[in-house]
Amino acid sequence: MSDAPKSGGPVTEEFLANLAAASRILAAQGVVDAFGHISHRHPDNPDRYFMSKSMAPALVSPDDIIEYDLESEPCNADGRGSFLERFIHGGIYKARPDVQSVVHSHSPSVIPFGLVDEKMCAMFHNAAFVAAGVPVFDISEKFGATDMLVSDHAKSDAFNEILGDKDIALMRAHGSVACGTTIQEAVFHAVYTEVNARIQHWTQALSNGRPIAALSEEEGVLADGPNQGAALRAWDLWRREIREQTNW
Amino acid sequence: MSDAPKSGGPVTEEFLANLAAASRILAAQGVVDAFGHISHRHPDNPDRYFMSKSMAPALVSPDDIIEYDLESEPCNADGRGSFLERFIHGGIYKARPDVQSVVHSHSPSVIPFGLVDEKMCAMFHNAAFVAAGVPVFDISEKFGATDMLVSDHAKSDAFNEILGDKDIALMRAHGSVACGTTIQEAVFHAVYTEVNARIQHWTQALSNGRPIAALSEEEGVLADGPNQGAALRAWDLWRREIREQTNW
Amino acid sequence: MSDAPKSGGPVTEEFLANLAAASRILAAQGVVDAFGHISHRHPDNPDRYFMSKSMAPALVSPDDIIEYDLESEPCNADGRGSFLERFIHGGIYKARPDVQSVVHSHSPSVIPFGLVDEKMCAMFHNAAFVAAGVPVFDISEKFGATDMLVSDHAKSDAFNEILGDKDIALMRAHGSVACGTTIQEAVFHAVYTEVNARIQHWTQALSNGRPIAALSEEEGVLADGPNQGAALRAWDLWRREIREQTNW
Amino acid sequence: MSDAPKSGGPVTEEFLANLAAASRILAAQGVVDAFGHISHRHPDNPDRYFMSKSMAPALVSPDDIIEYDLESEPCNADGRGSFLERFIHGGIYKARPDVQSVVHSHSPSVIPFGLVDEKMCAMFHNAAFVAAGVPVFDISEKFGATDMLVSDHAKSDAFNEILGDKDIALMRAHGSVACGTTIQEAVFHAVYTEVNARIQHWTQALSNGRPIAALSEEEGVLADGPNQGAALRAWDLWRREIREQTNW
Repeated sequence: MSDAPKSGGPVTEEFLANLAAASRILAAQGVVDAFGHISHRHPDNPDRYFMSKSMAPALVSPDDIIEYDLESEPCNADGRGSFLERFIHGGIYKARPDVQSVVHSHSPSVIPFGLVDEKMCAMFHNAAFVAAGVPVFDISEKFGATDMLVSDHAKSDAFNEILGDKDIALMRAHGSVACGTTIQEAVFHAVYTEVNARIQHWTQALSNGRPIAALSEEEGVLADGPNQGAALRAWDLWRREIREQTNW
Repeated sequence: MSDAPKSGGPVTEEFLANLAAASRILAAQGVVDAFGHISHRHPDNPDRYFMSKSMAPALVSPDDIIEYDLESEPCNADGRGSFLERFIHGGIYKARPDVQSVVHSHSPSVIPFGLVDEKMCAMFHNAAFVAAGVPVFDISEKFGATDMLVSDHAKSDAFNEILGDKDIALMRAHGSVACGTTIQEAVFHAVYTEVNARIQHWTQALSNGRPIAALSEEEGVLADGPNQGAALRAWDLWRREIREQTNW
Repeated sequence: MSDAPKSGGPVTEEFLANLAAASRILAAQGVVDAFGHISHRHPDNPDRYFMSKSMAPALVSPDDIIEYDLESEPCNADGRGSFLERFIHGGIYKARPDVQSVVHSHSPSVIPFGLVDEKMCAMFHNAAFVAAGVPVFDISEKFGATDMLVSDHAKSDAFNEILGDKDIALMRAHGSVACGTTIQEAVFHAVYTEVNARIQHWTQALSNGRPIAALSEEEGVLADGPNQGAALRAWDLWRREIREQTNW
Repeated sequence: MSDAPKSGGPVTEEFLANLAAASRILAAQGVVDAFGHISHRHPDNPDRYFMSKSMAPALVSPDDIIEYDLESEPCNADGRGSFLERFIHGGIYKARPDVQSVVHSHSPSVIPFGLVDEKMCAMFHNAAFVAAGVPVFDISEKFGATDMLVSDHAKSDAFNEILGDKDIALMRAHGSVACGTTIQEAVFHAVYTEVNARIQHWTQALSNGRPIAALSEEEGVLADGPNQGAALRAWDLWRREIREQTNW
């Protein structure tokens, strides 16, 4: 007899396939390497979410998906290991009813903005969501010297205080988190946070201290409207590439 | 009974295949990702142009091509969606009888030059067309805070005032446009605007404020002569790569 | 009758396959190009080690592996050529009983840190091992003008004095060395030294002289704990990719 | 009856296959895109050389190779077009009896060093040949505003005065030339000039005006010794990749 939390109920094969595909999409787009993870809230039960077992994201298949409660306790681990940092996901689903999907990554162009006192700004309309501001979580402020991982509830709570109502947040000397109201949007946010960071590096170098005509906050709100549709179009492209490789 | 504009007359299968291939070439060359589009004026009727339905450019097939009038109204949508920014294309074909093909993209190395007060210059002979000068369109000057998209006639007109008689123009916090007198030239301009931007970033960093011996305007005019042939040679290479993947 | 040193005893096919695969993994990850090498100490006899014959790492197969003593004399060359710089490997195995595997590479992002007076720092937790400090070996200090290669015992000894008890060290105008207590860890150290260098370049540019909130030494020690597991997860991914190509 | 110069005599199929492969290798290594060319002096007749017809280097096959005299007149064009800049090759073979193979390319990282008053230096031993110094040819000094191409004997002569006895030279706002005493060495020089330039860009940025401990001229000479063997090892790897694609 198990103490594991109960399942939130069955989900479709397509739901699981999409979550596994999202994992591989993030690898194909250079957002994750051997590390990083994406989760999706249970479509019928807001108190559960799904995420792969602890493994490289490029290898995830639907069978590797585990269901968790919001304490990040697995419902159906069956001996499969869980990511140490699953608490990031459970914590956000608790704190943010609007969020349906969460990506955690160490995408390389983004990391510098968590190490230096320079704000990420929205360089173009596809990254309009950046214009709302990108907070930086420094784990050492509350917890001193650590292994940098958000590996328990206390650290997850501290992270969520910094994230607030934003879609993305940086983690000093670690990586970043991107949220979405759909899995397509979470993937889109993660990819274009990295793309925006690449563009901003070159823009900063070019500006050499002169002003950068980034999106204003108001332009950011307006330009993010069409991004809902854009996220679906990008997903269609990326999802098809995975399907051609996997047959699911 | 349809209010759609009449077709400008049939075009060859090869014409449509080349336009679809151009779309995929731009994706293969890193000029477009899931977004961006290329159009071609009707070869027999200057008041019509062709462009794919709203979709990722890497996936476009000849069957996805829609015909438009210069108001950017589709002649044969058949329920297929149109790009929000098709007005860029229709507007240019109206304003510029010399232009036969137009690319709109967000290629990443180019965007910084629309955000910072630093002119794009021609770093080498293949980008000689840059030496004529690259104007920057800032949509906020006439329209205040917007979603950044050139999504109607008024915005397209304002863009065309900035473009003038140039082959390329930047759009602040958005992307760029490249025109050509042939589809091969439009693709060539789009690709080498991006390549030139990459080279200029490193050149600016290396110069650190010292002079850059870019092409002069006169050298630009002279060096652009051989680029007509160069565009065809590049097209041969890129077109063949698409043919090997698609059989069209 | 041969003067070659005796073998340290047979090893498994899997051992040799893993070493050959590690060579190809380093090529696939951009750590080595046509040059560079990885070795593994004999699992049963600490006085012997294994490394491929002199060849491009992307082409190494299990049959190309040669056994060496710690003087870097081949036990079973059979006419196959040895790397000129094998003394790097033998020297480290003599000096460092804790080290089981050694990578030597010229990975491009790392080289600048051996040419300029700027320390490599750990930009994120996966490169936590960098926080212990990265010494730079300048061969000219003891040997004047040379061909830059660590091609004999004296140069290897001089290198080992600089390496000390660290996992990685740079070689001025040449490349770097990464050690591990397992082959997985050596590969992980080599890959994430390069990744960290890429991130640090952008961080330095962004900081423009302002402070960089890199991992502290204490954070480095703590964050390197989970990297043992991380190295295995990365290995699983990369090893599988090689297996799909080679069937070993 | 043709006025074309006589052939220097037959060459082996392998000779032509290697030259065609070298063309494709340069494309695969990112040294050439749709443009650029490599030639090889006739092995038995120093007054003739071989180069492909005017086409994208990634597509060259042995059948596309044309023989030229040192005036760059084709012996066997048979209606096939010649590169406008073949005079670069013929001119070097006249001026430099030691040179057996020549590459002309526009490799992107190299171009900035022809535009800014900053010398290329040898960042590591594989680019040791750079330490001898890299002259810059500015076509405008003798010829004023041009199309930038070395498209006749006078321009080729002026280029050769700048090249002198060096292995590589830059061409302002255009590209560069790499020579070798073998085809393997010419390819190696072209590839590692580009790799060295990439590394130097990051090193310059990191140094921010502080000294760079590049190879000294003496170290350059010494370190270039082992590069003969290195060029062969790299060739083995790259040549094999082409053979797997082409069966020649």
